[in-house]
Amino acid sequence: MNWKEQQKYDREQLILAQAENMLFQTADNQLNMDELALAVGISKGTLYNHFSNKDAIIARIMERNAQNFLQMMRETMINVDDSLMKLKTLIRTIIRNPYFIFVLRNKPDMTGTTELVRIFEHILGELGVLFKHLQAQRLIDPVYPTPFLVSYFIHLFDPAIFDYLLKEGVLEDQIVALTERFFFHGTQKEM
Amino acid sequence: MNWKEQQKYDREQLILAQAENMLFQTADNQLNMDELALAVGISKGTLYNHFSNKDAIIARIMERNAQNFLQMMRETMINVDDSLMKLKTLIRTIIRNPYFIFVLRNKPDMTGTTELVRIFEHILGELGVLFKHLQAQRLIDPVYPTPFLVSYFIHLFDPAIFDYLLKEGVLEDQIVALTERFFFHGTQKEM
Repeated sequence: MNWKEQQKYDREQLILAQAENMLFQTADNQLNMDELALAVGISKGTLYNHFSNKDAIIARIMERNAQNFLQMMRETMINVDDSLMKLKTLIRTIIRNPYFIFVLRNKPDMTGTTELVRIFEHILGELGVLFKHLQAQRLIDPVYPTPFLVSYFIHLFDPAIFDYLLKEGVLEDQIVALTERFFFHGTQKEM
Repeated sequence: MNWKEQQKYDREQLILAQAENMLFQTADNQLNMDELALAVGISKGTLYNHFSNKDAIIARIMERNAQNFLQMMRETMINVDDSLMKLKTLIRTIIRNPYFIFVLRNKPDMTGTTELVRIFEHILGELGVLFKHLQAQRLIDPVYPTPFLVSYFIHLFDPAIFDYLLKEGVLEDQIVALTERFFFHGTQKEM
């Protein structure tokens, strides 16, 4: 990378970092290009030289976070021995990380062929492997088709529920415990 | 209503019915104003005389469907005696009705004061009453805060899961049974 490329790269990283901050400061994850240019200290023209529109910025942020999510999953698979503990560790890690929840809540339309779809295929595939393993060990009821489990797992994480319960005075640890319990009870064999 | 008002009303109903058809024909619920005008057989100018933009049409469709949803819930509460059966009937009715699933998946930002938010307050409130009742009867574990139950109930219905499992050859009745089972097992007392 020469000096000019390095400068371009650095500025793009700065724009992405600032855009990510703004996305996570608004409840509905909105991004405003005028405010973004102002916050980075560049003209709107310069901003559009780097990214052709708002969606291009959001796509890059999503890709980066989805990649981090995949990395976290792979580290959990390697570092945690017991399969049930792998799944519990995933739940605990995701529920406390707004960036990971953002990834799950913005699952792309999987018919596309973007980089993000490719990363998601890995995430969903590796979750599927873990669930199949738990079903083979009879830790999760084999009656549930694996896509059913993967999909409901992804739906477990709703920041609105989390925020509401925190406001109601339910402790964070208690919310994590209830979420874990709901999913594990739900997937047990007929009582 | 005089003749002119009646004509306006009829045409609006026609526009809404056609827009709803189009919304449900596309996988990602898209609506195109040019195609809509063409399908109704009016000019784009006439279309904009009735609705100022696409969002206004979608808002009206959402309101109508949410109102039907609330009506269905109230009829279930009156016509079904047993509380557990009330909840099971709701699950079975919703999962087979794409319009009801559409309502749940497009829950508005509840900080607003629109007509849709008002209808949703009723839906969420009445679901909450049902869950509190089931908890008082110990049919659902009282450890779960009611908003937690309401929120996970709403997340149970994902047309993508449903379509995928149908394609995989899982029968509709089996999908309904698995969904019911996942939710009821999930909310039982510690085993």
